[in-house]
Amino acid sequence: MDLNVLSSLAVENETKVVLVVMDGLGGLAGPEGRTSLEAAHTPNLNALARSGICGFHDPLAPGITPGSGPAHIGLFGYDPFDYLIGRGVLDTAGTPFVFKPGDMASRLNFATLAADGTISDRRAGRIPDQEGKRVTALLAENIKEIEGVQVLLQHVKEYRAAAIFRGKKLDGRLCDSDPQKIGLKPLEVAPIQQNPTSEAEEGARLANSFIARAKEVLAGEAKANFIMMRGFDIYDPLPNFCELYKWRACAVAAYPMYKGVAKLAGMRVIEEGQATVEEEFDLVERELPSTDFLFLHIKKADSMGEDGNFQGKVEVIEHFDRLLPRLVDLKPTVLCITGDHSTPCSLASHSWHPVPICIAAETARVDSCQTFGETSFLTGGLGRIHSTDVLPLLLAHAERLMKYGA
Amino acid sequence: MDLNVLSSLAVENETKVVLVVMDGLGGLAGPEGRTSLEAAHTPNLNALARSGICGFHDPLAPGITPGSGPAHIGLFGYDPFDYLIGRGVLDTAGTPFVFKPGDMASRLNFATLAADGTISDRRAGRIPDQEGKRVTALLAENIKEIEGVQVLLQHVKEYRAAAIFRGKKLDGRLCDSDPQKIGLKPLEVAPIQQNPTSEAEEGARLANSFIARAKEVLAGEAKANFIMMRGFDIYDPLPNFCELYKWRACAVAAYPMYKGVAKLAGMRVIEEGQATVEEEFDLVERELPSTDFLFLHIKKADSMGEDGNFQGKVEVIEHFDRLLPRLVDLKPTVLCITGDHSTPCSLASHSWHPVPICIAAETARVDSCQTFGETSFLTGGLGRIHSTDVLPLLLAHAERLMKYGA
Repeated sequence: MDLNVLSSLAVENETKVVLVVMDGLGGLAGPEGRTSLEAAHTPNLNALARSGICGFHDPLAPGITPGSGPAHIGLFGYDPFDYLIGRGVLDTAGTPFVFKPGDMASRLNFATLAADGTISDRRAGRIPDQEGKRVTALLAENIKEIEGVQVLLQHVKEYRAAAIFRGKKLDGRLCDSDPQKIGLKPLEVAPIQQNPTSEAEEGARLANSFIARAKEVLAGEAKANFIMMRGFDIYDPLPNFCELYKWRACAVAAYPMYKGVAKLAGMRVIEEGQATVEEEFDLVERELPSTDFLFLHIKKADSMGEDGNFQGKVEVIEHFDRLLPRLVDLKPTVLCITGDHSTPCSLASHSWHPVPICIAAETARVDSCQTFGETSFLTGGLGRIHSTDVLPLLLAHAERLMKYGA
Repeated sequence: MDLNVLSSLAVENETKVVLVVMDGLGGLAGPEGRTSLEAAHTPNLNALARSGICGFHDPLAPGITPGSGPAHIGLFGYDPFDYLIGRGVLDTAGTPFVFKPGDMASRLNFATLAADGTISDRRAGRIPDQEGKRVTALLAENIKEIEGVQVLLQHVKEYRAAAIFRGKKLDGRLCDSDPQKIGLKPLEVAPIQQNPTSEAEEGARLANSFIARAKEVLAGEAKANFIMMRGFDIYDPLPNFCELYKWRACAVAAYPMYKGVAKLAGMRVIEEGQATVEEEFDLVERELPSTDFLFLHIKKADSMGEDGNFQGKVEVIEHFDRLLPRLVDLKPTVLCITGDHSTPCSLASHSWHPVPICIAAETARVDSCQTFGETSFLTGGLGRIHSTDVLPLLLAHAERLMKYGA
């Protein structure tokens, strides 16, 4: 759906839309032939399925496994192939850093360089937050610009930080310096494309200078004596989600990356608290009255999937199910529960499998699904849609779209 | 599907295809948990469902509610986003008026202007046909051209008419002059786009001059003393439906707008009679021998939906079901029954919900649907297709398409 056309149909009204993304929600059958979602005791999710329309969405395309960025970008209605956001921009957006259009951002991992010039620890012994902050500040103090280009440092978490280059037109299509394995030498940053632009060549030169300067500055450190750069990208603002759909949008998420992707879309992001799912629900209850669209991100289903912890994923889902009545009691006009992608425990990673989705609303054409799960949803009324169709459907069920044409 | 590719595969044969569009066919569950279509007693539609392949089509895109124009354009195989037809052209096409490419058409509503310059009645007291014809003729007599551009007037129905500007390249991307509420002053016609073309500026100037002249001409009228313009568009012929698919196509419809959209596609439109559904069936029986593709439009299901009249919609469907054997007895090679969009009684308006469709043909891969309805069709063999896939499927089931490639 063309964003301009969709936006031209959007109207304001008094409805509330809540989109819950349970990260990595979909799965594959476990030991007893049921997925985590099917094995979990979920009376409240089942009730929701009975009152709504169910089915699946494909995050990107059949067979294509999404990263978290594109998966969320799709759910927010943007074509994830048109709006690919590099890790550097995504992670930085999850921090308080304020981008300017044209900034080139890169993730920056503190690492340990051995005497022979090879990487002996890609995470600098997983230095804690405080240590990461200290070495980031050390870099910031000593490297303020390179060849007239401003260099900005932002700590992210533990051994992870970001470097932002500002003030010159650059091209972020650059390879990582991280060799991905220990015992190897770091790579030179270089343009990815065969016939690179001069802006990419300049970006690579600046990045390599920065790495050399950082090595000098960090020389006295025991663990974090080196940095590796990855996920270069230029910050280019997304069409603003609030302006496109003429509504107030708010994001409640516990992890920086999901705050980041919501912020990139122009949503108001709640920065405080929310270490637990209960705290996230508290914030939803507090924020919903003053917003029209609320995005709630629940992380742990994915984490358990990534760990291959079938029972752990069951428990995360059951925990959410017990809290769900708090959401239902808020009586949003539209309540949608889905994932950004599947994370089957048997694969212990993100996967390409379509993601279960349920849209509960009075305007939904209710289907005959009785339970919330992958097998049940195969006969759901939504069928199998694309992730980018989710947002238009949420708007439609909230009666926030005019008809197209006479 | 690319129209040129599809057309290149089309072959002539002796088959007959009948496409019945029951306007606004799909719905939402009513008081007893069933839609109008499910609540209706439809033994003949059920028999058809058992002999065909069933499912849903999305008129435009998930979540997008179509106007009648785009909804039909899609069923006729044209991409409704590529071929958006403005109300001015659509309504005029439903009259005997013969367009020339490049004509700029606008709907024209007779209205009552109060002494203070505000609109006191947007429909001039709903003046009857005869009165509408008289004032249209009065305008036509007195305004034949403006600044060398020919002005043609066409009465449509009651207080509705159309104005067509001919003889100069114009751009129809203009806003309406109708303020949409009584007690407000009429708006100036102006280009919609921020950086309008000079052709749009000229179109706006001509339209405003026309409005001023019409006000003088109508000054002596008690009710219809003013006109408002809306739905400006340039007539740009669609690729011809008969030439594309090498068949004779014919339309039977009771309402001007549906005749109009068929005429714009290049179908032969039966202008006479057809006030009742029985009369429409009479015409289908008369015309089918001399046509290959017959489009039959049944209006009242939508009207009842728009009125929120659940039982009324049930009765329209049951009435059609009783007549259906007359169609089946004509033994068309392919008989497809669907709607252009859903019109749930609970919303009392067009909606975005997918539309039930059944294609009955000897070449159909018959599925296990036993009844004709929204819930039953969820397990239908067609699944959920796009409206623009309907026409290729009708051609295919009539064996009118060659294979693609060797």
